[in-house]
Amino acid sequence: MRIYGDLVSGNCLKVKIVADVLGLSYEWVAVDILEGESRTPDYLSRFPAGQVPGVVLDDGRCLAQSNAILRYLARDSVLIPQDAFLQAKMDEWLFWEQYSHEPAIAVCRFDMRYLGKPREARDPSRVARGEAALDLMERHLAGTTWMVGDGATIADIALFAYTHWADEGGFALGPRPAIRAWLTRCTSAFGGRVTSRQG
Amino acid sequence: MRIYGDLVSGNCLKVKIVADVLGLSYEWVAVDILEGESRTPDYLSRFPAGQVPGVVLDDGRCLAQSNAILRYLARDSVLIPQDAFLQAKMDEWLFWEQYSHEPAIAVCRFDMRYLGKPREARDPSRVARGEAALDLMERHLAGTTWMVGDGATIADIALFAYTHWADEGGFALGPRPAIRAWLTRCTSAFGGRVTSRQG
Repeated sequence: MRIYGDLVSGNCLKVKIVADVLGLSYEWVAVDILEGESRTPDYLSRFPAGQVPGVVLDDGRCLAQSNAILRYLARDSVLIPQDAFLQAKMDEWLFWEQYSHEPAIAVCRFDMRYLGKPREARDPSRVARGEAALDLMERHLAGTTWMVGDGATIADIALFAYTHWADEGGFALGPRPAIRAWLTRCTSAFGGRVTSRQG
Repeated sequence: MRIYGDLVSGNCLKVKIVADVLGLSYEWVAVDILEGESRTPDYLSRFPAGQVPGVVLDDGRCLAQSNAILRYLARDSVLIPQDAFLQAKMDEWLFWEQYSHEPAIAVCRFDMRYLGKPREARDPSRVARGEAALDLMERHLAGTTWMVGDGATIADIALFAYTHWADEGGFALGPRPAIRAWLTRCTSAFGGRVTSRQG
């Protein structure tokens, strides 16, 4: 398997974490999104939406969309609950992450960290949505150890990626102790295994 | 099962289509989003993100996020491919729909149809993203009958919802014959069964 990705992207980091936690064998193909490498004809021939990450299986078939990749790589593993309803709640968080969390927090982080914008130049509507997303996670995590069920799932990994970088987008985790405790649990559960094969 | 929804929302329409196509028994609970009924304390106690649709199962458990609901209701049905890779490609389209299609096309439609904005007042970045999303669908559907595999799946239903209303958001389907032919197939496959139990 080849994973096309850029580790400035939390969406790519998710895929790396899942592959590393599950001990999957892969080749990491670095795609520099800041240099437009996800919009070349060659890249678009594999991944027409022009987004990272993308995965090419050993038989040549291609798969895009970070959370779809997570679901595929982690199928039949402990990272996906077997119970149908718990699996649905996991999906609920995966879709929420892509709709309500990533477009706010990742974009603010990108603007500040990679475009060099000051914190006060962030898009106010994205700031409000990002704060609301973190508030929702804080309330949820105040009453549970993991996002869904009794153990870490790909919902935790998907949300870990940009949440652990939220400060780089100008979002404060200090007043959110439940998120901070959960981030520590996440790092302990799978963060340590994600140190190799970068770039 | 109770489905909380507002049929001005394509995200709610999706759930209704899947429930009707599968012949599931449900009570439709009308939630007027234009009147703020998805932000009341009672609604938020069930669905903390304050979004429609939401489903309450007969045992009281709650599930949100349209595509997570689709996946749950259609589990073990013909609307979800059994093959793991085809299922992953279905997921790819479900996540793409929520990230790249809905935030562009649904928002433009909402602005024009429900806020009364003129076409030229649409957010240019959402217009560009919506046009790109429809172009991507057109290229894909030029070479395939259904979004994934050999039959209709929940990826078709998820994309049908806002695509068949794209003109209400100022997007032209005239120059997109593959999308129009696919919409006709969708209507034939499941549109006719969705006429009852509204509101």
